[in-house]
Amino acid sequence: MDNKKFLSPYLWDLTPYVPGYQPENTEGLIKLNTNENPYPPSPKAVQAMHNAIGEKLKLYPSFDCLELRGAIAKEEGLKTENVFVGNGSDEVLSLCFPAFFKQEKPIAFFDITYAFYKVYCKFYEVDYDLIPLNEDFTAPLDAFNGQYGGVLIANPNAPTSIANSLEEIEAVLKRNPDCVVLVDEAYQMFWGQTAAGLIERYPNLLVVRTLSKGYSLAGLRAAYALGQPHLIRALINMRDSFNSYNLDAIALAGATAAIEDSSYAKANAKKVMETRATFSRGLEELGYTVLPSSANFVFARPGDGDAERIFQALGERNIYVRYFTAERIKEWLRISIGTAEEMERVLAALKEIG
Amino acid sequence: MDNKKFLSPYLWDLTPYVPGYQPENTEGLIKLNTNENPYPPSPKAVQAMHNAIGEKLKLYPSFDCLELRGAIAKEEGLKTENVFVGNGSDEVLSLCFPAFFKQEKPIAFFDITYAFYKVYCKFYEVDYDLIPLNEDFTAPLDAFNGQYGGVLIANPNAPTSIANSLEEIEAVLKRNPDCVVLVDEAYQMFWGQTAAGLIERYPNLLVVRTLSKGYSLAGLRAAYALGQPHLIRALINMRDSFNSYNLDAIALAGATAAIEDSSYAKANAKKVMETRATFSRGLEELGYTVLPSSANFVFARPGDGDAERIFQALGERNIYVRYFTAERIKEWLRISIGTAEEMERVLAALKEIG
Repeated sequence: MDNKKFLSPYLWDLTPYVPGYQPENTEGLIKLNTNENPYPPSPKAVQAMHNAIGEKLKLYPSFDCLELRGAIAKEEGLKTENVFVGNGSDEVLSLCFPAFFKQEKPIAFFDITYAFYKVYCKFYEVDYDLIPLNEDFTAPLDAFNGQYGGVLIANPNAPTSIANSLEEIEAVLKRNPDCVVLVDEAYQMFWGQTAAGLIERYPNLLVVRTLSKGYSLAGLRAAYALGQPHLIRALINMRDSFNSYNLDAIALAGATAAIEDSSYAKANAKKVMETRATFSRGLEELGYTVLPSSANFVFARPGDGDAERIFQALGERNIYVRYFTAERIKEWLRISIGTAEEMERVLAALKEIG
Repeated sequence: MDNKKFLSPYLWDLTPYVPGYQPENTEGLIKLNTNENPYPPSPKAVQAMHNAIGEKLKLYPSFDCLELRGAIAKEEGLKTENVFVGNGSDEVLSLCFPAFFKQEKPIAFFDITYAFYKVYCKFYEVDYDLIPLNEDFTAPLDAFNGQYGGVLIANPNAPTSIANSLEEIEAVLKRNPDCVVLVDEAYQMFWGQTAAGLIERYPNLLVVRTLSKGYSLAGLRAAYALGQPHLIRALINMRDSFNSYNLDAIALAGATAAIEDSSYAKANAKKVMETRATFSRGLEELGYTVLPSSANFVFARPGDGDAERIFQALGERNIYVRYFTAERIKEWLRISIGTAEEMERVLAALKEIG
């Protein structure tokens, strides 16, 4: 039977995004393949989630999400109308495509970056140009010169872990005043800087953040976008044309409390950054090339470039890291930063593997 | 400044869906405007949600959602591969559009039905034909004769509350073998029947359900689609091209436990159906016309057709119901079924209003 006839033809050749492997049982594993935070979420967030459970779940959650948006605005020194919230940054990014990027001109992003961007383009029928990263994986931001219908920059970038300075980001905003420049700051907490301070001056800037990594809440699905009100209104219109109640009542409560307790998350991020420095030095001592990381992972190349062998050998030792088969990065591994003790065990395993 | 340039032109004239008013404070209100269940969610679901909160929220939730999909399959007498899960039925319905409905031929649905369908069409650039309901608000299902790229039927329909029989639905499936026939069963629990039993025989049938109403979990955002595996795979591909982790770990746990405790929800639905019968008789005694309801709401017309006056007068008494301004239904009110005591108070208020 020809069941293909039931499917929308424009998506027959769609290749969905494939996230890192998620084992059902993580007992005894060192799981460093999906950039999760090794530390637990804020106890205040945990308490707020417990408090949100009960009879009131029979009612729809908040439509305006004012409490969460207000907490984020306060944390960022912005106003509620500068904040959009969504069900994980994948949803927030996704809604940006119909909101801003279905333009006559193609949008542009780098060849080595978050692999989901290309999938969104196909899903929403958005044309794009891929700008190759430089040989050393730094980002040639001067490629964006007002010729595109939109610009997408992951900063820090993934899987390279490299951040561009705020001066470089601001220069892109200046050179591209007629389209949205989306700065995806999923790993912002481990960099410590943000483009959010530029929002007041640039009507074309949208910054996207997630609570998954920095706030140890990957399991909760909460993220946000920051920008001038005309961009935020457009995203709210998109949400209300796709799924009006995208954040459940427990996620709203937990995310609000987590943001209000941001000093807890920042202290954890500091620990991750310290472990990252120690681990990077350890890798270099083993002959690895390690890119300068501003994220909660490192991107590293073994001396002989046989990353796949290392990936397999670590897997056999119950240590999961991420290996990509794409041509330009197939000699590299992306390794999330766990606890100091976990990373010592990884170094010991790598030494043993040789 | 012309900020419109930042927006995708195809959506400049988009009108998003507007859900029923959600007051932040429901204290002292009788809230009968968004078809929520008056009874609390299952205590077992509540316990499961508490259990899901903790350190493990630092990890991404299940990617395959096998536990929840398995529980739904068991409840429906189907297999896990027959089940897709999403973040509320709005999301599930939304993903059906790029999956099935971007066809050369327009899709079709009724003029009086769930108002979101039209919004999805605009969002995804899907052409549609509106089939007028009959004068008495029954559905002329014989209008669907294989000439469309997709068929969408809310059964029971909203806001009319009228259900079509399974024989009528099956006839539509037979007459439209080359496109997906989506049966939106958001209110199925208050009807007691379902088209799910037809799935095995019809590769073109997709049934969509939600836990919001029947399971008293509007605040949690969980819903599902049932169909043959080729349709479910297509929906999973859409999800993984939009937002891979659409259900958080707490929602997955709560929804699974709620489904496993379906007898609790069914007992509540029985109470709602009994209250619906009593309330409908009461309305008729006050001179209202009441359509035969298979949902957790009634659609009723005051004797003089001045529904707006009644809507206002009820609002002044802290009783919220739903009033639509669309031409064909502006003389009608949609009133959700609350507890028996709440509905007695509504009848008393209506008597007083006159």
